Amino acid sequence: MEKYIYSFNGEETEGDASQMNLLGGKGANLAEMARLGIPVPPGFTITTECCNAYLQSGGDYPKGYADQLEEALTRLERSMGLTFGDPDNPLLVSCRSGGRQSMPGMMETVLNVGLTTETIPGLIKKTGNGRFVYDSYRRLIMMYSDVVMEKAEGIETENGNAIRPQLERILSAFKETRGVESDAELSEEDLKEICIRFNKKVIQVLGREFPDSPRAQLEGAIGAVFKSWNGKRARSYRRIENIADNWGTGVTVQAMVFGNMGETSATGVAFTRNPATGENTFFGEWLPNAQGEDVVAGLRTPSPINEATKREKNKAVQSLEAAMPDAYRELESIRHTLEQHYKEMLDIEFTIQKERLFMLQCRVGKRTGTASMVMAMEMLDEGLIDEVTAIKRVKPHQLNELLHPIVDPDEERRAKCLTEGLPAGPGGAFGHLAFTSDEAVKLAKTHPHVILVREETNPEDIEGMRAASGILTARGGMTSHAALVARGWGKCCIVGAGGITIHPSLKKMTIDGTTFKQGDILTLNGTRGRVYEGKLNMVDATEDPRFQGFMEMADKYRTMGVRANADTREDALVAKSYGAQGIGLFRTEHMFYSAGPEDPLFILQKIILSDTESERRSAILELAPFVKQEIKNTMEAMDAMPVTIRTLDPPLHEFVPHARAKQMELAEALGVDLNEIKRRCESLQESNPMMGHRGVRLGISFPDITEMQVRAVFEATAELAKSGHHPQPEIMIPVTCDVNELVFVRKIVNRICEDVARQHGLAGLVYKFGTMIEIPRAALRARQMAELAEFFSFGTNDLTQLTYGFSRDDAGEFMPTYLENKILPADPFQTLDPRGVGELIKIAVERGRKTRPDLKIGICGEHGGDPASVRFCYKAGLDYVSCSPYRIPIARLAAAHAAIEASEKDEG
Amino acid sequence: MEKYIYSFNGEETEGDASQMNLLGGKGANLAEMARLGIPVPPGFTITTECCNAYLQSGGDYPKGYADQLEEALTRLERSMGLTFGDPDNPLLVSCRSGGRQSMPGMMETVLNVGLTTETIPGLIKKTGNGRFVYDSYRRLIMMYSDVVMEKAEGIETENGNAIRPQLERILSAFKETRGVESDAELSEEDLKEICIRFNKKVIQVLGREFPDSPRAQLEGAIGAVFKSWNGKRARSYRRIENIADNWGTGVTVQAMVFGNMGETSATGVAFTRNPATGENTFFGEWLPNAQGEDVVAGLRTPSPINEATKREKNKAVQSLEAAMPDAYRELESIRHTLEQHYKEMLDIEFTIQKERLFMLQCRVGKRTGTASMVMAMEMLDEGLIDEVTAIKRVKPHQLNELLHPIVDPDEERRAKCLTEGLPAGPGGAFGHLAFTSDEAVKLAKTHPHVILVREETNPEDIEGMRAASGILTARGGMTSHAALVARGWGKCCIVGAGGITIHPSLKKMTIDGTTFKQGDILTLNGTRGRVYEGKLNMVDATEDPRFQGFMEMADKYRTMGVRANADTREDALVAKSYGAQGIGLFRTEHMFYSAGPEDPLFILQKIILSDTESERRSAILELAPFVKQEIKNTMEAMDAMPVTIRTLDPPLHEFVPHARAKQMELAEALGVDLNEIKRRCESLQESNPMMGHRGVRLGISFPDITEMQVRAVFEATAELAKSGHHPQPEIMIPVTCDVNELVFVRKIVNRICEDVARQHGLAGLVYKFGTMIEIPRAALRARQMAELAEFFSFGTNDLTQLTYGFSRDDAGEFMPTYLENKILPADPFQTLDPRGVGELIKIAVERGRKTRPDLKIGICGEHGGDPASVRFCYKAGLDYVSCSPYRIPIARLAAAHAAIEASEKDEG
Repeated sequence: MEKYIYSFNGEETEGDASQMNLLGGKGANLAEMARLGIPVPPGFTITTECCNAYLQSGGDYPKGYADQLEEALTRLERSMGLTFGDPDNPLLVSCRSGGRQSMPGMMETVLNVGLTTETIPGLIKKTGNGRFVYDSYRRLIMMYSDVVMEKAEGIETENGNAIRPQLERILSAFKETRGVESDAELSEEDLKEICIRFNKKVIQVLGREFPDSPRAQLEGAIGAVFKSWNGKRARSYRRIENIADNWGTGVTVQAMVFGNMGETSATGVAFTRNPATGENTFFGEWLPNAQGEDVVAGLRTPSPINEATKREKNKAVQSLEAAMPDAYRELESIRHTLEQHYKEMLDIEFTIQKERLFMLQCRVGKRTGTASMVMAMEMLDEGLIDEVTAIKRVKPHQLNELLHPIVDPDEERRAKCLTEGLPAGPGGAFGHLAFTSDEAVKLAKTHPHVILVREETNPEDIEGMRAASGILTARGGMTSHAALVARGWGKCCIVGAGGITIHPSLKKMTIDGTTFKQGDILTLNGTRGRVYEGKLNMVDATEDPRFQGFMEMADKYRTMGVRANADTREDALVAKSYGAQGIGLFRTEHMFYSAGPEDPLFILQKIILSDTESERRSAILELAPFVKQEIKNTMEAMDAMPVTIRTLDPPLHEFVPHARAKQMELAEALGVDLNEIKRRCESLQESNPMMGHRGVRLGISFPDITEMQVRAVFEATAELAKSGHHPQPEIMIPVTCDVNELVFVRKIVNRICEDVARQHGLAGLVYKFGTMIEIPRAALRARQMAELAEFFSFGTNDLTQLTYGFSRDDAGEFMPTYLENKILPADPFQTLDPRGVGELIKIAVERGRKTRPDLKIGICGEHGGDPASVRFCYKAGLDYVSCSPYRIPIARLAAAHAAIEASEKDEG
Repeated sequence: MEKYIYSFNGEETEGDASQMNLLGGKGANLAEMARLGIPVPPGFTITTECCNAYLQSGGDYPKGYADQLEEALTRLERSMGLTFGDPDNPLLVSCRSGGRQSMPGMMETVLNVGLTTETIPGLIKKTGNGRFVYDSYRRLIMMYSDVVMEKAEGIETENGNAIRPQLERILSAFKETRGVESDAELSEEDLKEICIRFNKKVIQVLGREFPDSPRAQLEGAIGAVFKSWNGKRARSYRRIENIADNWGTGVTVQAMVFGNMGETSATGVAFTRNPATGENTFFGEWLPNAQGEDVVAGLRTPSPINEATKREKNKAVQSLEAAMPDAYRELESIRHTLEQHYKEMLDIEFTIQKERLFMLQCRVGKRTGTASMVMAMEMLDEGLIDEVTAIKRVKPHQLNELLHPIVDPDEERRAKCLTEGLPAGPGGAFGHLAFTSDEAVKLAKTHPHVILVREETNPEDIEGMRAASGILTARGGMTSHAALVARGWGKCCIVGAGGITIHPSLKKMTIDGTTFKQGDILTLNGTRGRVYEGKLNMVDATEDPRFQGFMEMADKYRTMGVRANADTREDALVAKSYGAQGIGLFRTEHMFYSAGPEDPLFILQKIILSDTESERRSAILELAPFVKQEIKNTMEAMDAMPVTIRTLDPPLHEFVPHARAKQMELAEALGVDLNEIKRRCESLQESNPMMGHRGVRLGISFPDITEMQVRAVFEATAELAKSGHHPQPEIMIPVTCDVNELVFVRKIVNRICEDVARQHGLAGLVYKFGTMIEIPRAALRARQMAELAEFFSFGTNDLTQLTYGFSRDDAGEFMPTYLENKILPADPFQTLDPRGVGELIKIAVERGRKTRPDLKIGICGEHGGDPASVRFCYKAGLDYVSCSPYRIPIARLAAAHAAIEASEKDEG
């Protein structure tokens, strides 16, 4: 005979915490606590297998269940010295669902099951507290009619309106006629009258009576839990989260204890450590004379459980520690027992009935990223957990919080969001508004915090962007100029905030009818894409040495390399400080994302727009030293680490000036008419620039520009090598689709390399030659590509765009609909698509290594900083991931997790 | 001992036509003719294997060669009764290269080898014709010093200038001093003097003497042929054409016969049938008193060989038939013998020496498409060839000529090309210029031929485009609006002609400084993308019944289906007349490519730009009947054949008006401000529209638009079914990348289908549901896609764009460079890339059929009409190809060829 019911009752307890799958999280943890000698009201859990049997049979309980229920109930009655349904000495129970993991759409708790017209008088007599009994009864009716009768049993309401709000209206109306505000001010008689009205309303609305038999209530509640497993919301949640239908749910039936039996009774919830900071202090809230639901319902404000966690604003309220010192001491001791036992921070629920403490639930507590890291390191120090466990305790994305100042979550919760845009640069920022780059620079001289607001940005805005604390644009997507620059710098940025209308010449903008002028203050949350009026405080991530220690520990387990996408000496140094082991992507074009007549961009513009061969050549010669110096600076900063230099990638029109003033400057420099400059700029426009004349295509059309870049790399290498450094350049060709492109460029590279070596009197120069794999065809033709390429680097931004045919800048129009309708499980620009894009990556890795077994393979798209994508890269056999400097710790941790997972899987 | 030399000499001939690989085409065919008893000057051919041996050894002849050469030469001397190098009775020979196929860069012919200061007097004495002998000698020096000494032996010239032009200058200068115009007017003495000057010049320029020994001349010429096999041009040609280096070349040494021995001697070339029309008449040209090179050199104008082929303009000249009737009769008889033997139209060279006819060469003749078809059908009727051979005789692309009127090639050759653009619509057209759509319509009422010239076209130009004979745009690529519409209609069109500057308001344009006004006449060659001033005549392809017969015969062998891309009843009827077996692509959007306030485009614009839900819905209802009617018309025209209807594909901004007047009309209709309309139009702009909000993405964002389209299909189906037709709609969803998109749309399709069937009182409606495969991810995920899709249709335009990351509209910027540098073997938008795009197609076919073995698979990109791509599709196992109506015969023939090839391969 299968066992469907497991009792828990001190030493007679049958289950334990290892039986999560059978008993659900709640039941298993209650059994575990009972075994530990912790005071838990006795009860029993009906298994998930019983649930499956019940649902498969279409609503019949399996054979043996009825007898086991009788036995368990009898055992419960015996241990409580009470009898279920006994008019004189009635046992009341709670009924709760509990699956392997908590899940929306599952039946909520029903408390006080067993109260009927028969048992009410006996309980009043026994407790001498009629008010308590009717308060319990009206709660039972409210909960039961809602979650069991209407929701689980699916009884249709008379008028199509839900029952619960109608009952709540009766309660409010009654309080109004009595002239009172809180439930606590209602008398026994009032509550009795309310119960009568409730019962009438239930008949009227649901067309049947509230069950007046304890057995009917219990059976209804148990059946309701099982039925809720197949409710619409639960099913759709399971489909989304990929949870098997046959997990089933357990039901825990537990003797009631009452926190609402007067002022010596109470209820509360607590965390064994501070879930926000990780601090090792007991942290929780409690309410006197209340049942559990009151703490979360928000009608009464709960108080801190102890003196230590009181804050300025709630100094006056009484802590549990002060009000019931004995119960608090016991709770503290239980906290200790549980942490030692579970080796985790726990989230617990308790009730105090007439000064006696009972534990109603314990589970692993949710926490912030900072708290995760702090707890992991402290528990490691305390000897509670080992290194691998400590590393696994912190989810990589949680590190985000530690790496950027963020808007104080408390303040943000209370603030009104003005408008939203795309979360393009992480963290928070506040500041005075400026509507042009020049204004931003000027304003920043007197005000430390400036927000630059632009329709969209272009290279000419770079100085203002640098000066600003945050950037806000009305247009543009996640790969717009503003977004790319901001992410590279780790600067707070919101793009594509379509709700704002900017009037730069009037130095103002409007949002939803409200006008904001230059100098007004706004706050941006770049992590969520939200804009707020006025200044919200920032919470600064501390330079916690525990963080350093944590990362070093994770590195011990990591096997895959982590490099940075960095384009300047400064970025390279930041990257190094965050633990980068090289640069996986140096974007040559980034040195042109700033402007001014003496700047490289201006010279590049001359190259692009010059008409005669000699003008062009002389401009190229003029540009060469700048390019060399930038590359040299970065390679010098990284010294003996590899630096992957990508040749010019974007289409040329991205570099030509849009502003009239800049066009005039250029017209003057080139000695041509302004209209001619305009015409040349326009002729560079493309229909689909992402698939246009860019990357290696430019390098082949304009071999002299390729030459200049390659020469810059080798000149820098030669100079560094001669001054005692160990430069390790890797020349990377972007946007390739055929090995012949590499053949073409390689010839140039070979020639220039020999040339430079000879000029510098060196025997040779050490470098690698490789290609981006970012075009589907390059992935498919990897066997050929690897004949020339010594390394591959997956450009997963472009590869995702082309594999899906999604323009990243335009996908914002349909992506939300796609995610809402579950057409895609995730935005493939955020998390690497393992199926389509992933298959191309696997194909390229396999074919590439077939040609060249020691082919070095990395990824340098933005996925390099996404934990799930890092995991994919590890599994696909990549040698390294490269990401923006500020995501390096995340990538390091994700790579450590992937390696640990794999070794655990091997061992398992 | 290997045999390196094969003699040919009447009955003693050693080789034959089957030995092309060993003897080269020239040698093998000379041997074959000799065997047939045709008068061929005797000679011998040195094999391609000797060539390989010579080159591998670095210039040594293989063992046995020398003896074989002696023997062959002796045999030749014996049969001629002459001796090589004999001062009294000298044998002269010609020396020619000959590989398996003719190849640029190979050594040209050297004639008159054996003439030296020793043999000249003997020959003069023997022939009594000093003028002839010195003429032959000066030719030898010119040819030999050029092709043997300078080119093959690589002797550097003194001043870096080629020898031949310097010798030619001597000749011209001499003629000038003599006051004569033609070589024929030079006397023996003149020619002798010229030879002396030539010999001096050779020494001066090449630094060595022209060899005065017959043996040295012969050995030099033979070695030169071999060396030329490894010349730079030949090698690069072989690399491009994928010709193996070890094919080698043969050398044919043949006794000289002389067409320059006076007025009873002559030389000529001929085709056994008319290579332009296919007519079964002997067609050729001849020159009296000349050597072969004179016919092609163009210094003298040759005459027709017979009376029948004389034209008006050369009525006065004498034909060979008239001048030498006996020789002509013999030639006619040889023509007959050769055709009967080779069962092909042949290209022959002959020389008449003192009234005696000699054949110098025969090979399969090149011909036009029309001629190919005509000859194939006539030779089939004559019993010369069988059906399979007849079908194989016509290359699919040759049919192009038969399907469109073309610019008369003769006139075009003489006309000056004003400017070039992309060849977007086939055939030729001339007409009066119009610079707006309205003008074109107006002008067409009085003038039958109009050329519409626009910056680029949009739907508002459609009436003018319809009225015009040809379309010319200054901007846009091969998939621009103008190109798509023109190709669909089979109308002559040139797009992206960047050299023209248009001033529509002034009704004029300028090309290279020349101004053309409204009403001026231009001619377009849409097949080549060339623009000419004035009117050039058109050659009309006749509606030849032989063409119909040829196509029907090809169909007997074809196994793969051919459908049309057609969007209107008219297109469908054209397609049917060309043999389409269904419609593979009905583009719903094409009904919106015309404009006017009562037109569907206007209603669509209202849908797109309306702001309120109710405005939108009512506009959708307004549009529905138009859509239904267009679909119904097309399905009715095709009746029992399948019609694949693709739901709306392009991004919405393609449909919104650009012209201010249209925007105002719309503003009025929607009752909003013009600026608001402008704003809404602008908000639809995308960065990369090709990868933007289009296709199924629109269908999911706006399910009501999908519903309307699907309902239109089913309404049309129901109405046709009830009126006794047999509609076979296939609903095709474009731009998909994941099966969930199909799940989403399929739900709508199912619902509407049931709904319409019920409304019409039908039990159900027969249809198919399928998807385009045009996004790489869709190909990779084909296993899943086929769970919902009953058919796949490859959209190879988009698939090529995304697989390469090439925007078709922008690729023009770099594609020429890519093709020039041999980075790509062909433009992948013209010919399906078998490697990258092809692999994705193969993957999709394999995975799709794994899920659904009866999955129907076709292709509907423009590759569907490209022969090489059709061949690929056949091999990949596709069920059909679909192409524009005017390419259907090409696709049918290409599919027949593919099937024949495959069955021959199976048999072989």
